[in-house]
Amino acid sequence: MPRTAETASFKFNHTMIRIRDPKVSLPFYMDTLGMDLLDKQNLGDFTLYFLGYDHDGTSKLPNEEQAKSRFNREGVLELTHNHGTESDASFQGYASGNADPGRGFGHIAITVDNIEAACARFEKLGVSFKKRLTDGKMKHIAFLLDPDGYWVEIVPAALKL
Amino acid sequence: MPRTAETASFKFNHTMIRIRDPKVSLPFYMDTLGMDLLDKQNLGDFTLYFLGYDHDGTSKLPNEEQAKSRFNREGVLELTHNHGTESDASFQGYASGNADPGRGFGHIAITVDNIEAACARFEKLGVSFKKRLTDGKMKHIAFLLDPDGYWVEIVPAALKL
Repeated sequence: MPRTAETASFKFNHTMIRIRDPKVSLPFYMDTLGMDLLDKQNLGDFTLYFLGYDHDGTSKLPNEEQAKSRFNREGVLELTHNHGTESDASFQGYASGNADPGRGFGHIAITVDNIEAACARFEKLGVSFKKRLTDGKMKHIAFLLDPDGYWVEIVPAALKL
Repeated sequence: MPRTAETASFKFNHTMIRIRDPKVSLPFYMDTLGMDLLDKQNLGDFTLYFLGYDHDGTSKLPNEEQAKSRFNREGVLELTHNHGTESDASFQGYASGNADPGRGFGHIAITVDNIEAACARFEKLGVSFKKRLTDGKMKHIAFLLDPDGYWVEIVPAALKL
């Protein structure tokens, strides 16, 4: 139950990360991870892509209904593309947040029903792994690397810590 | 609808950020932003705190049911506390992701029904703002600063871009 009446309507709507090239990142998040593109906003020097899992079929609704639902749900990923990074040879890349300097943000995490099947499919698709299920001590989780090097944890939905 | 059968069970479960001091960050996320503590795991040198809005009353379920739901939902925030940072005078702080070096991650965002009321309450609570509603061009959104300096966007749920 909501902790207070004043915060009862609050939702953790989205997480924003910057991407170098949408032509590389969108196929990763949409085809490899299976998210839908909920909205795209070209705002001049940059474009925002809002992605999320469409569990309840809102991607089939009329555009206006879809747009309404974008801020009225949780689990949205916002990708910011600052135009030009994709073709700038001097671009240094974005920090993953997991090394100094720049340590802070850690990862996003996707839960899946069958982690062995999911990871076998990621291997088949040629996805880069930071940590396979068989690496290290934590055999029940894996970490992928997204095209910018951000860590994407893969966790079984039935995990008990 | 899910884009493929292979990704139909996938959920964007959580986003992880590191925090310096849970005694400061937990009140911010729980009391100011109204999240519930879904789970806490002390793993030796570090402790993980899983927070989220309890819209469907799972925090009232028995512990085992609650634990199950933690990975079977969206909109969870994982805070990682590496023990000792809170009392380490030489600790440099975590990068917000919005300045070089360390640029990459941008922010998390909370949607609210009444943004004027929400921001008035944040003012009353003494929260630090990165951008008030009245600052800059985007008068419909605000940005708070969490205790580590991460940006927390506040967005009206009915926003149309």
